Amino acid sequence: MVGGTAVGSPEHPVSGPVAPESSDSAGIAFAEDSAFLSVVEASGVGSVLVKPGLVPSKPHIVVDRPREAFLKLLYLVDAPLPLAPDIHPTAVVDPGATVAEGVRIGPYAVVESGARLGAGVRVYAHAYVGEDCEVGENSQILPHAVLVRNVILGARCVVQPGAVVGADGFGFAWDGKRHVKIPQIGRVEIGPDCEIGALSAVDRATLGVTEIGEGTKLDNFVQVAHNVKIGEHTVIASQTGIGGSSTIGSRVSMAGQCAVGDHRKVGDDIRMGGRTGVAQDIFEPGDYWGTPAIPIRDAQRIALLKLKLPEILSRLKALEKARQ
Amino acid sequence: MVGGTAVGSPEHPVSGPVAPESSDSAGIAFAEDSAFLSVVEASGVGSVLVKPGLVPSKPHIVVDRPREAFLKLLYLVDAPLPLAPDIHPTAVVDPGATVAEGVRIGPYAVVESGARLGAGVRVYAHAYVGEDCEVGENSQILPHAVLVRNVILGARCVVQPGAVVGADGFGFAWDGKRHVKIPQIGRVEIGPDCEIGALSAVDRATLGVTEIGEGTKLDNFVQVAHNVKIGEHTVIASQTGIGGSSTIGSRVSMAGQCAVGDHRKVGDDIRMGGRTGVAQDIFEPGDYWGTPAIPIRDAQRIALLKLKLPEILSRLKALEKARQ
Amino acid sequence: MVGGTAVGSPEHPVSGPVAPESSDSAGIAFAEDSAFLSVVEASGVGSVLVKPGLVPSKPHIVVDRPREAFLKLLYLVDAPLPLAPDIHPTAVVDPGATVAEGVRIGPYAVVESGARLGAGVRVYAHAYVGEDCEVGENSQILPHAVLVRNVILGARCVVQPGAVVGADGFGFAWDGKRHVKIPQIGRVEIGPDCEIGALSAVDRATLGVTEIGEGTKLDNFVQVAHNVKIGEHTVIASQTGIGGSSTIGSRVSMAGQCAVGDHRKVGDDIRMGGRTGVAQDIFEPGDYWGTPAIPIRDAQRIALLKLKLPEILSRLKALEKARQ
Repeated sequence: MVGGTAVGSPEHPVSGPVAPESSDSAGIAFAEDSAFLSVVEASGVGSVLVKPGLVPSKPHIVVDRPREAFLKLLYLVDAPLPLAPDIHPTAVVDPGATVAEGVRIGPYAVVESGARLGAGVRVYAHAYVGEDCEVGENSQILPHAVLVRNVILGARCVVQPGAVVGADGFGFAWDGKRHVKIPQIGRVEIGPDCEIGALSAVDRATLGVTEIGEGTKLDNFVQVAHNVKIGEHTVIASQTGIGGSSTIGSRVSMAGQCAVGDHRKVGDDIRMGGRTGVAQDIFEPGDYWGTPAIPIRDAQRIALLKLKLPEILSRLKALEKARQ
Repeated sequence: MVGGTAVGSPEHPVSGPVAPESSDSAGIAFAEDSAFLSVVEASGVGSVLVKPGLVPSKPHIVVDRPREAFLKLLYLVDAPLPLAPDIHPTAVVDPGATVAEGVRIGPYAVVESGARLGAGVRVYAHAYVGEDCEVGENSQILPHAVLVRNVILGARCVVQPGAVVGADGFGFAWDGKRHVKIPQIGRVEIGPDCEIGALSAVDRATLGVTEIGEGTKLDNFVQVAHNVKIGEHTVIASQTGIGGSSTIGSRVSMAGQCAVGDHRKVGDDIRMGGRTGVAQDIFEPGDYWGTPAIPIRDAQRIALLKLKLPEILSRLKALEKARQ
Repeated sequence: MVGGTAVGSPEHPVSGPVAPESSDSAGIAFAEDSAFLSVVEASGVGSVLVKPGLVPSKPHIVVDRPREAFLKLLYLVDAPLPLAPDIHPTAVVDPGATVAEGVRIGPYAVVESGARLGAGVRVYAHAYVGEDCEVGENSQILPHAVLVRNVILGARCVVQPGAVVGADGFGFAWDGKRHVKIPQIGRVEIGPDCEIGALSAVDRATLGVTEIGEGTKLDNFVQVAHNVKIGEHTVIASQTGIGGSSTIGSRVSMAGQCAVGDHRKVGDDIRMGGRTGVAQDIFEPGDYWGTPAIPIRDAQRIALLKLKLPEILSRLKALEKARQ
């Protein structure tokens, strides 16, 4: 199955992949180097996938790429959240919705008029697929996820529980006395193979489109404001916020709690450390950190010097005293 | 409709307002100056609302205030999320709830005993209106929004999807061994014309009231802790948190990811830049930034000097060397 | 009931505990010192619990520990969110679920196959208890809370509205062209007497377990990533994020908007001020602040010196000028 050479008793039982520190004697872990292997040897794990050259005392399988082989095992044991075939009798599907063959819809899900569910789509319990939303083939809308309205979702996407896609953007005009709501009439378009994390929010555009490109993944609690454009294969970690009308490139990586101001541009292939704050446009690919976001080496140097402020002040005082 | 002068063919079709960069030849955009107009001229937009003095090549309407005229068009095409009239047969409305004329309640919504829904209220699919909650006239509780208990909501409010209003505040007393829950028995009162963003939380008071004043708008992921008081016509952007028992004034504006500590006071007419952290009370109206929050010019100067720390250290070293 | 000595008319009515500044003449407040008492005396509160030695003009009860006596009163008037006994006819409980005696399940709740609900459990409206989840005795799953799958919850826990426990961790492997999802097949285990705040997220482990120990309390919007371990009796305030595979000790206290990076360790009895960022392991008990997290006194000193940067630069310039 993983294409390697088994060493040890052929009767050794393997029930599935486990963590290296597991006590499961029927579990199999993986080790790419001797440090990793020593964890597996010290634990109760029954067997291990290893690189050629590593020689565990436990039953093992030698493969060129243990991590990839292990990933294959994870896929074998992985299963989607349970959902009965067909449409649950309690699901409320508007007659104006279009539902392809093989779609499964869970209890108490609501699908509004004009919604289009592609082949193999799974809509779980309590999910809401609003007016004129399109869900691409084999996408999953997990329990309690909400597609509010005018959301176009590509194929094979996963919308995790509690996520809200297509709510109004935060747009108000001050009329001298009060904030008057600017109607948010745009839509959201999300490419294929995207993941929207639990309790994340992607707002609809004021006009036009809030866009997320193919293969982009959002963690939990990510805020994507109205009219944002995010490129392809970008990953954004938890509690990060992207301000209105900003543009994020492709293959960007943002760690947790980052922030991008309104109307900013972040180019392709940019990586940001935790809590980076983008106040100005960034185009040069590379690693950034800090607020404002600067190249990470500079940011690390400044973070260190900030801790040296007491020493800097002492040295300044010494010079002042010497001068007197 | 917008009260201006049309220039160009009277047969030119206009289907609705669009973004200036749109390719919709039946769309109409607006331009307040020539820079804005050049975007519209370069795009596929069919027509444009302009100020007197601007002369577009496209069909246009000359109005004194193009932005306001455009807002009128947005209101014309805006429509509430769809909801059938009356009460959906699957809605569970407790006999002890009071429901005014013309209230619409969507599928699988739950309205508990003692709840009072005013005229024209819309409660969408899966929303929960808990015990003794009051929803003012024409307010909208969008899909999956939750009013937990004892929430008084004014007229014309919008509670966006997934928002939770009236959950327990975070109150525990350490008894030497464990954190004992302090029962949270207070309520939440929200004035008229407020908006609570998607996935935002407003906790009920320990005792007394958590208050949000008339016309105040919260973006997504805003945390309002127990016993907070927020004034009128204040706007709070995404991922901002207000600590317990703090007071925020009227016409305050907070950008994204700001924080206000517990028991702090923020006066009227204060504006905060992104990620401002309020550790001490602020009363003087104006613009603030940084942590601690200080006047924005000072904060910007310090942010710049922080980036100069390597240079400051070099100059210090040069002086030390010269002295030897 | 509170074991003290009443002073004043025995007919003075007491309806329940109120805030010291309340205008409720039937309310009772508490005062531990004369400053606190003066607030009560100036308000409309009818009566007050006081320490021996304090002599209010209002009817009062003298007790050794007014705060604890007041807490007893709060418990007396506290009541769980309403929920009819038994299982609501609209609840969808899979025949493969195990439901103990005395369990209450609200309207439109869904309980999946393999779920086990202990005695006295309350599952509220729209809550979702997924496949193979276990809910310990007397725990409460509030409206719209979601236990996605493989979540083991101890006794007497409270999962506040909109919380999502057991969603996939954020795990992807870059294959040179795209991020390939690493199946998240682990589980979540939460000890007894825990509270998960409204709209908080605790992700399931990639392999193994994401763990939260006995008596630990999370506020709203807390992110607990996959494979995190949190000890016992720890409190974590709103909008804080704990990165993947990190370990947080027991009796830790984290204020709002803190962050812990991936694979970090935080020992027992550590307290963090607001927005602390943990980039390196911390083991020494005590108070910490800042990013990186350092002892709070040092962090406060640095925060002050940062504000003095303009002055530091001026003094440096003066020295440079003098040298010329």
